[in-house]
Parts: sequence; C-alpha cells; structure tokens
Amino acid sequence: MASGMCGSILVTGSNRGIGLELVRQMAESPSPPSQIFAGCRNPDGPNAKDLKELAQRHQKLITIVCLDTSSESSVREAAKQVGSRLNNGALNLLINNAGINVPGTLSESGQKEMVDVFVTNTVGPMLVSKEFLPYLKKAAAQLGSQEMSCRKSAVINISTLLSSIEKCHTNFAFAPMYPYRVSKAAVNMLTRCLAEDLKSDGILVTAIHPGWVQTDMGGSQAPLPAEDSVKGMLKVFANLTEKDAGNLLDWEGNPIPW
Amino acid sequence: MASGMCGSILVTGSNRGIGLELVRQMAESPSPPSQIFAGCRNPDGPNAKDLKELAQRHQKLITIVCLDTSSESSVREAAKQVGSRLNNGALNLLINNAGINVPGTLSESGQKEMVDVFVTNTVGPMLVSKEFLPYLKKAAAQLGSQEMSCRKSAVINISTLLSSIEKCHTNFAFAPMYPYRVSKAAVNMLTRCLAEDLKSDGILVTAIHPGWVQTDMGGSQAPLPAEDSVKGMLKVFANLTEKDAGNLLDWEGNPIPW
Repeated sequence: MASGMCGSILVTGSNRGIGLELVRQMAESPSPPSQIFAGCRNPDGPNAKDLKELAQRHQKLITIVCLDTSSESSVREAAKQVGSRLNNGALNLLINNAGINVPGTLSESGQKEMVDVFVTNTVGPMLVSKEFLPYLKKAAAQLGSQEMSCRKSAVINISTLLSSIEKCHTNFAFAPMYPYRVSKAAVNMLTRCLAEDLKSDGILVTAIHPGWVQTDMGGSQAPLPAEDSVKGMLKVFANLTEKDAGNLLDWEGNPIPW
Repeated sequence: MASGMCGSILVTGSNRGIGLELVRQMAESPSPPSQIFAGCRNPDGPNAKDLKELAQRHQKLITIVCLDTSSESSVREAAKQVGSRLNNGALNLLINNAGINVPGTLSESGQKEMVDVFVTNTVGPMLVSKEFLPYLKKAAAQLGSQEMSCRKSAVINISTLLSSIEKCHTNFAFAPMYPYRVSKAAVNMLTRCLAEDLKSDGILVTAIHPGWVQTDMGGSQAPLPAEDSVKGMLKVFANLTEKDAGNLLDWEGNPIPW
C-alpha cells in the first residue's frame, strides 16, 4: 500500500514502537517519500538494532540521526546535520513521536517525574519544531500555491486519548498517570499554539492519538498492533487539510475533544 | 460583604496581586474564616511588605507561611508547619494561586522557560495538593455527611482563559505566551485528575479563571480591578458543588471549554 507520504520526512523516537513502524511502512511503501530521517536518542545502543537493520535495507532512503529531544544542544546539532542533507533544504513533514511514560499515581509523582516527562513529551516537540522550522518554511514556500497538507509542510505531534481533559473521567481510574496526562494535555496546547503561529507560513500542525498500541509503552494488554495503528495514521496524514490544523484526531481520523 | 468562606484556608502566592486580595477580602469580611494561612515565597523580602502589614492588622486570623511552590522541600516544610497550627488538623480550602509568566513567543521560549513556568504553575499546585492532602482529607472526614463544597474540603487551582485550547485561536495573536499557556492547559488536566482522584474522599477540585486582572502579571492594560475579580471569585467559591468538580469556571461562574 502506498504511504501517501512524499518529500522529506523526519520521525523522532524512531528506534522502537510506533516510530519504528512509521519509518518501516513509509520506507517499504511502493511509492516511498524521497528522504526519511530517523531520529533516535542513541543510534549505537542496543535499542536501535531494529532501526539499524531497517536503514541497512533502505540505505538510499533512511538516514539515522542522533536526536535526543530532551537536550537543546542535541536538537540543534541534529537540525544542522539534517539541514545539510535535505533536498533543496526543505523538510515536508516532521513527526514528533518521541515520548516517555512513568508510573504515575499521585503518590508516585514528584517534581522530578513531572519535569522529566514534560521535557521529553512537551518541550521536546517544541524544540524540534523550532529548530527545524527554517526547513519546514522552505518546503512550504517551495509549494506555496498548494493547500496546506503533509505533502507540503506539516508538523504532527503524537498525542494520546489520555490527553483529553474532557474524557479524563472515563479512563482515570484505569490509568492515573499524572505526569503523562499532564504532559500530553500540554502538547495539545502546544499543537494549537504552533498551528496558529505557523498557519501564515502555510505549515499545518495537527495532533494524533495512535490508539492503544502493542508497544513497549502500550504494554501487553493493548488491543491494537502497531502495524494497524500506523496504517491508519498514514492514511489520516495523507488526507489532512487546513480544517485539521490545531486539532486532535485519532488514528482513524475521528476528532477527540480537548 | 461576607466572603462566604469558613474554616481553615491556605492561599499560595499571597503576597501580591490576586493572592493578596483574596487574603484581604476574606480577612476583612464581617464573617471571616477561622484561619488564613498566607503562603509566600519570601516573607522577609520587599515584595511581602503589604502582606505583612495586612497580617499585622489581623494577627489572630492570618499566619504568613514561607512557601516556595517550586521547591519540594519548601512545600513539605510548610505542610509540617501549617499542620501543627491547624484547628483539629483540618484544612478546608487550598487555593493554588502562586504562578509566574515570562515573555513567550516561540523564539523566546526554550527548555528553561518552559520548565521554569511549568514547575511553578503546574507542578507547584500538584505538590501543594499532595502534601496538604492529609489535612484536606481530615476536613472532609469531619464534615462527612455534607455535600462537597469549599466549606467542607476543596482545592481551587487558579487557571486562566489562556489555558483554553479551544479558545486559543481567539487570543493567540494577542498573547502568544507558549510557556504560560502550556503550563495552564497542564494545570487544567491536573485539576481534572485531582477531581477524579479525590472525589471519593469528598474533596472538591475546581479550576478558576480570575479574569484579566490589574496586577503586576496582568499589566496596565487589564480591564478588571483585583478587587472585583476576587469579589466575584469568592462568590463562585461559596456556591461550588459536586457538579463543578473538575471544571474550569470564570470569576463570574461561567464555564470555559478546555
């Protein structure tokens, strides 16, 4: 199946779970994008083995980039490296996927847990968006006459159903997760702010809930295989337009209330 | 005018602006609460002068407490001190008012700005709620048969209209403020989580938007005098019931969407 993605794409946190599956499906698509940059905190670590094998099979397409979204200097360095390799200096799609979770009842959650999760899940997407913004702007300018889309220039923030303040009462007892929920409600606000801020540049910004996915983070009870989640998300990405700017959708394209 | 507040109350960030006015109106009410603990980061600093004068005039009622909500050890120490002075060991109302703002366009906002504002505006209310929870539970247990209310046991988080993701498009251009908006959307999620978490203890948790108020933070263009904002909020507090748990209301009691 065609991924519907084209141009140059960066995926953060791409060594495992949803990030790895996103890179895999786009790379293995019959009409893949022209460049995939696969951000990964520690490309030489044991957790990057699968990504390295995938990149080995698609050497012309996939470039692994050392990118720790919790470090400003790492994000800056990665932007410099990717920038020097981008076709025409343009990045069409940034997928802010890197995220963490920790056990999170009230008694388990102190300042350290709250800040650590916030730094990766909320500040990370902000820093990456900010440092890669010149390339996103370039892509948008090069395709200036087109409508906003993921083929033109876009930022996708991976959020979660658990980010929904409105829906909190339906799932809190099952998954308290103070640091995670708070960081993801925060990334929803970031999404809306970026969407407002960057719309005049023609850059689309949207948040997506990948579903409860069978990954290390999702755990063994999760109902949705990563393959199905990513198939759904890629279809959603391919169809995003201006009307989706600043919104939160699930992997099937259904809107989720804030 | 009666403040409608009774029992023992803690207000954080009470040396200036809305916090100071909350303490003043409650203390000067013809039927004041029995104890007011006025949390303040630096009671001996020049910014606490007005609070000290107010406490001097109401020595039996107001106790100034050194409380830096960005420091876990300070919050813990304050909880110990207040706990030893509470009537019957019970705290009826915690008002998480302490908050900060910084200039906040995308280019002005880095990891430090995001984390600093988050630590005070979001993590602070969580830490204070957590450390004072035994006293709030005690108050709720002592008035076990009553409906949830601010007279029984409650946590109020001071939020803002700018926390509303839904309303972001109406005011972003005028006030970008990434760190502040993100921290306040996050405190809304915290509010909802705490409301879910503590309802079985009979503790009411609600967020409130004080309006755009003439304070150091609100600036000189703000239309609403602190006196009017606080008058309105105290009226809202006095009428809060179970149906308001986990919601965001403005100083006139109108709901604000997430």
